[in-house]
Amino acid sequence: MKRDVIRYRNGARRSVQDQLAEESPVEFRLRDVPIAVLMRTPGNDEELGLGFAITEGIVVGPHEVVAVERVEGSQEGDRYRIVLSDGVTVDPEQFRRNFFTSSSCGVCGKASIDAVRIAARAMSPGPLIEPRVFSSLPETMRRHQSAFEETGSIHAAAAFTPGGSLVAAFEDVGRHNAVDKVVGHLARTAWPPDDLILFVSGRISFEMVQKAAVAGMPMIGGISGASVLAVDLGEELAMTVIGFVREDGFNVYCGADRIV
Amino acid sequence: MKRDVIRYRNGARRSVQDQLAEESPVEFRLRDVPIAVLMRTPGNDEELGLGFAITEGIVVGPHEVVAVERVEGSQEGDRYRIVLSDGVTVDPEQFRRNFFTSSSCGVCGKASIDAVRIAARAMSPGPLIEPRVFSSLPETMRRHQSAFEETGSIHAAAAFTPGGSLVAAFEDVGRHNAVDKVVGHLARTAWPPDDLILFVSGRISFEMVQKAAVAGMPMIGGISGASVLAVDLGEELAMTVIGFVREDGFNVYCGADRIV
Repeated sequence: MKRDVIRYRNGARRSVQDQLAEESPVEFRLRDVPIAVLMRTPGNDEELGLGFAITEGIVVGPHEVVAVERVEGSQEGDRYRIVLSDGVTVDPEQFRRNFFTSSSCGVCGKASIDAVRIAARAMSPGPLIEPRVFSSLPETMRRHQSAFEETGSIHAAAAFTPGGSLVAAFEDVGRHNAVDKVVGHLARTAWPPDDLILFVSGRISFEMVQKAAVAGMPMIGGISGASVLAVDLGEELAMTVIGFVREDGFNVYCGADRIV
Repeated sequence: MKRDVIRYRNGARRSVQDQLAEESPVEFRLRDVPIAVLMRTPGNDEELGLGFAITEGIVVGPHEVVAVERVEGSQEGDRYRIVLSDGVTVDPEQFRRNFFTSSSCGVCGKASIDAVRIAARAMSPGPLIEPRVFSSLPETMRRHQSAFEETGSIHAAAAFTPGGSLVAAFEDVGRHNAVDKVVGHLARTAWPPDDLILFVSGRISFEMVQKAAVAGMPMIGGISGASVLAVDLGEELAMTVIGFVREDGFNVYCGADRIV
């Protein structure tokens, strides 16, 4: 969205129009029970809801979700209902957690510290990747970051084939939302994503690795670095975690056996 | 923490030691009720707990909190109790929200979309700031970002005087945590912070503005841009919101009357 801003540059002051990132809350429900409110960049809300349901372990896979449909008549905001397949029962109470958290947090609403690690799928050995493929990912993803080009302040996530071809890319003000949109898209187009690489524009936190793991993606890379706990989780789950991916190289934290 | 990584550079591969950012969960309790689990960089947990209690509106100010004290005997993780002042009663049930959210979210656990905006203090007109002061903030903050220097992937937040002097700076894997540590520190050293500038290393989201507002800080700046909703909130509350702060200038989204 374009907004008037006052730009100070080298002592001069002038009014200009600037493109700002969009951000607004969306609520997801199971039956009629709200289970999550996310601050996200509007667009691809169905993918976001489906991906969120998968990576947070609310459902075990795409087949358990029939649709993510807009709740009509909600004047005050965007609300969606995650409609489960016949015979699938998920107790929404299970997700009525006892905390609230502020964030970039990674353990939002988990019932206790002990419950941080949610069930991850067994990792496929995954394909072997050539180093030059990784080096190409940032530039390929950047070419699909239209909102970043315009606003300079929005995250991105993407899925790539072992050969470095882009399968899906999404942008969002929230790092985790961008990943969930990718997973939600893959859920309807390329499931399971066992041989795809998840790539993110920022740093690799514990929860980013957790989301990749729960989605069954054994390889995650990022333009920034990984945390200790993220690498610990990646090692535990036999994943490949790669950081500081640039044109001239990258750092492998664990799972180097998938790189030839 | 130093870890072994395999570094690929221009086709060559070698093992090196790399400094990784620390990240682990911490739980905060009111009486014996857990109200939040945050994924944070360990250190300054008391400041984090106090700042979180203030900026999330759990208490109305520092005087309502006697201490943030470690719960002894918790083998499985870091747990702290927020001890309220005599006569202050906060119903923890009020914070047993009905959702969980994944994140960078900004509305984690708020009871509904309608409840996104939590009570903010009336803004002081605030002092007048010279443009050159803003341009100096990134470099001053960077000199205090030891973990960023080492890891290349950690957020920072700081409080500055109207003249550009650093009052406090903290780093954290979570953007919101860094802000809460600053507010928690100010709560014991420089309250109310009506004439201080809050400065952050990343983008300015809705919740960053909200946290500044609830803390009573009328000016917020960042190295990256602000979202539309963040600016809307800043305008509504008569705050000054400034983005893309660099040595040669910055963009003012609203509240330019505080800049001389």
